[in-house]
Amino acid sequence: MEIALEREVGRGGPVYRQIADQIRAEIAAERLGAGEKLPPIRALARRLGVNRDTVALAYEELSREGVVEASVGRGTFVRSAVEPIAPPPHFEARLSPLVDRLLDLERSRPRFGSADGAVPLHSLIPDPRLYPAAAFRKALGRALQEGGPELLLYGGPQGLPRMREALATHLVGHGLDVVAGDLVLCHGASQGIALAVRVFAAPGDCVALEEPTYNNVLHTVRGLGLETAAVPMRENGVDLQALERTLARPEVKLFYSIPTFHNPMGTTTSLAHRRELLAIAQRCGKPVIEDAYEMDLRIDGSPVPALAALDRAGLVVHLSSFSKSLFPGVRVGAVTARGRLVEALLALKQATDLSDAMPLQAALAEFVESGAYRRHLTQLRRVLRARRDVMLGALEEHLPEGSRWTRPEGGYQVWVELPEGVDTHELLPDAVSAGVLFAPGYQFNHDGRASRGLRLTFAMADEAEVRRGVAALAGAIRERAAASLRRPQPVVL
Amino acid sequence: MEIALEREVGRGGPVYRQIADQIRAEIAAERLGAGEKLPPIRALARRLGVNRDTVALAYEELSREGVVEASVGRGTFVRSAVEPIAPPPHFEARLSPLVDRLLDLERSRPRFGSADGAVPLHSLIPDPRLYPAAAFRKALGRALQEGGPELLLYGGPQGLPRMREALATHLVGHGLDVVAGDLVLCHGASQGIALAVRVFAAPGDCVALEEPTYNNVLHTVRGLGLETAAVPMRENGVDLQALERTLARPEVKLFYSIPTFHNPMGTTTSLAHRRELLAIAQRCGKPVIEDAYEMDLRIDGSPVPALAALDRAGLVVHLSSFSKSLFPGVRVGAVTARGRLVEALLALKQATDLSDAMPLQAALAEFVESGAYRRHLTQLRRVLRARRDVMLGALEEHLPEGSRWTRPEGGYQVWVELPEGVDTHELLPDAVSAGVLFAPGYQFNHDGRASRGLRLTFAMADEAEVRRGVAALAGAIRERAAASLRRPQPVVL
Repeated sequence: MEIALEREVGRGGPVYRQIADQIRAEIAAERLGAGEKLPPIRALARRLGVNRDTVALAYEELSREGVVEASVGRGTFVRSAVEPIAPPPHFEARLSPLVDRLLDLERSRPRFGSADGAVPLHSLIPDPRLYPAAAFRKALGRALQEGGPELLLYGGPQGLPRMREALATHLVGHGLDVVAGDLVLCHGASQGIALAVRVFAAPGDCVALEEPTYNNVLHTVRGLGLETAAVPMRENGVDLQALERTLARPEVKLFYSIPTFHNPMGTTTSLAHRRELLAIAQRCGKPVIEDAYEMDLRIDGSPVPALAALDRAGLVVHLSSFSKSLFPGVRVGAVTARGRLVEALLALKQATDLSDAMPLQAALAEFVESGAYRRHLTQLRRVLRARRDVMLGALEEHLPEGSRWTRPEGGYQVWVELPEGVDTHELLPDAVSAGVLFAPGYQFNHDGRASRGLRLTFAMADEAEVRRGVAALAGAIRERAAASLRRPQPVVL
Repeated sequence: MEIALEREVGRGGPVYRQIADQIRAEIAAERLGAGEKLPPIRALARRLGVNRDTVALAYEELSREGVVEASVGRGTFVRSAVEPIAPPPHFEARLSPLVDRLLDLERSRPRFGSADGAVPLHSLIPDPRLYPAAAFRKALGRALQEGGPELLLYGGPQGLPRMREALATHLVGHGLDVVAGDLVLCHGASQGIALAVRVFAAPGDCVALEEPTYNNVLHTVRGLGLETAAVPMRENGVDLQALERTLARPEVKLFYSIPTFHNPMGTTTSLAHRRELLAIAQRCGKPVIEDAYEMDLRIDGSPVPALAALDRAGLVVHLSSFSKSLFPGVRVGAVTARGRLVEALLALKQATDLSDAMPLQAALAEFVESGAYRRHLTQLRRVLRARRDVMLGALEEHLPEGSRWTRPEGGYQVWVELPEGVDTHELLPDAVSAGVLFAPGYQFNHDGRASRGLRLTFAMADEAEVRRGVAALAGAIRERAAASLRRPQPVVL
């Protein structure tokens, strides 16, 4: 009996199954006949250079299938009537309906097809060319050295005190009245959204969200079994009358808002708008989750206080993140709240994943305390200002009449609305062919309906790339307009 | 007008609010009279050494309160009728009922009170004295150097390919028939539990769990709005008849099981038990989540194949973790599944927190590939064997007649059942006074009912500490028994 094992781990499957398969094949090919004795376990194990348990497991499997038969003290024998037992039927698990819903959402994401070399004006991920990677590596090395093995324990659901201190100080600089105890660190602001939403809303409840809004929050909220209510965005922020009507509905439990450097619109609301928004939340008795994910990225204009800085009643839960201002890979975000809400967030965080990774929190604390983060921001803002100015200039130069766009005072994104009649999702393949990617507006709508809006970013693209990308986009728009003129018009019979 | 600012960031609150508060106080104390002009914004900002926006914000706040009045081009004046405006009433948010339920569970955790110096036989966290911290730090340094800034991007919901390759190879060594594409990395096995459960069960559905079981999984499952069905543990694994009855119920969507080194019982089921368990799952058409969190910690005895290694139908989703075999702080766990289930897990992971931290995954991959993990395991298992033997010996020596305990072949935990009539939750304060901590059994029961069971571990305690801890525990048990004999018996009148 010849048995050849695939020795490279990860190939050929588990060894015991390889052995069983080959013996089964020998029997099927009648090279091993009924009543013949298999080699003793110990001998075969030695011959193959494997553990005895491995051979025993193979024999056990064949015996269970009825191919061989073990006789205590005598050995293992090929059975006379070999009726190969079919493997069990494949099990098709029923997925949760929420997962089906999520998979539908995933499938509706834009496909960029073959986009090699296209300018990535779709991406809201900061440019790796701008990461202070070496400085961060040093901070991580120092933090691990100082922290010792204790840094490798569970850190508890609230996160490293040193990092919370550093971030609380930073938030106070942004006008928030907070201390380290008000912060719950989490795994990026994205996890913070899920935690904060769950504090107030249970499955079946409804969450009010701007429209357009950050597309992933639609996934998060629906994946939790919650419904969404769309409150339309205007040029100067969410429609406040619509907001009041929506928050008055009893099933709506909270409002999620991005008042500063809105995603996808890039706009920042005025102080007056913020005060009115808080007054509405107070009248309706509904909390507000303020996503301040780009708060450190102001390029110019006067800072407007965060909702959380204006809130004296305790209405606002504030989310912050280092993913856009430093890099996403550090996975440190924070939820800022008060009293009972902190307790609720901790219980949820504990039930979600117990604790974040302390080494990265310690490194980031080191990085912030040392002033390296502040220096990085100064440099980053300078780059962003130049890129934004180039983008706004190029839009002015290239986009067809009837197009409109926002002028962000910070962050990475500009919202463009093309002339009536353009569906930006349909435009995407043409843009890809022309050498540019953008984020079509439909995915920021709650119901995924067609949009003439699109999001452009200057996150991943430098000045030259931005210029080239906008020109390519304008080219694709002109092409499409010309083609639609050339297209034969339907004839009425 | 005197204004003294608390300069130290993080103290005294936002600066604009300090300014507003002090001007308000000046007016209240009538040191600033009706009609008096406040200093021009620019001048006060210069005097205080703050940004003009900060002063403007303070004036704006006072104006909104009706304390002062701005007159365009003339300046800001104290109003004649100063009616201080009360701060808005404190907002009491309504918490989600699921959060209330979680908070109740959190409050029911055992309190150890003042336990300084007590032997930590309650803890399932590996001993920091055994962490290969220096070797891991080196691996992290190397990984970051090689990976460059790209390692600081989002890594995608599936996790670093290099880490998945390394872990798939490791799992194949455990008899699983998997490739890197079958793995979804996550933030510790604890996050893996939440993700895997959500694949099959939506809020309102029911999850079958062993009883006793890992207490945090009760929190996780209930925090998601799911109900639990208890399937009793016997000495040799879960009661299979009860399992079949439970899985036959339509609202029960899956079974969560810890067949190897059970938490809290420390037991490992036989191959026959595993085959029968899978047959039941197949008959009922319900998937099994196998939590293999301590799979690398076998001390002695023959390995029993994982449920996932025996499963040919695709019934089993397998969870693994490095939290117990290396240290928790690396936060790398994995869910292993097939086809559609992987797609579902990725959608859920994306909606939960987008991506894990790549630097730690890269470091761990480096650590596993280099053989450092294997070397660490060899050493760790030797330490665990010695500690376990000491614990079993001490239990034999000290525990009163009528006590029973398990004899784990791996992992960190022993389950002890004290003689009839003892409630181990009530025993805990006495044990703490005697100098030992343990995990009382009630918290592993679905309904939190009293238990005469308790979990002891040799994770955080070395041999001498284990010996001392078990002796102290036995002392506390004897004391309590003696006290209950001395207690006056109720007299029947």
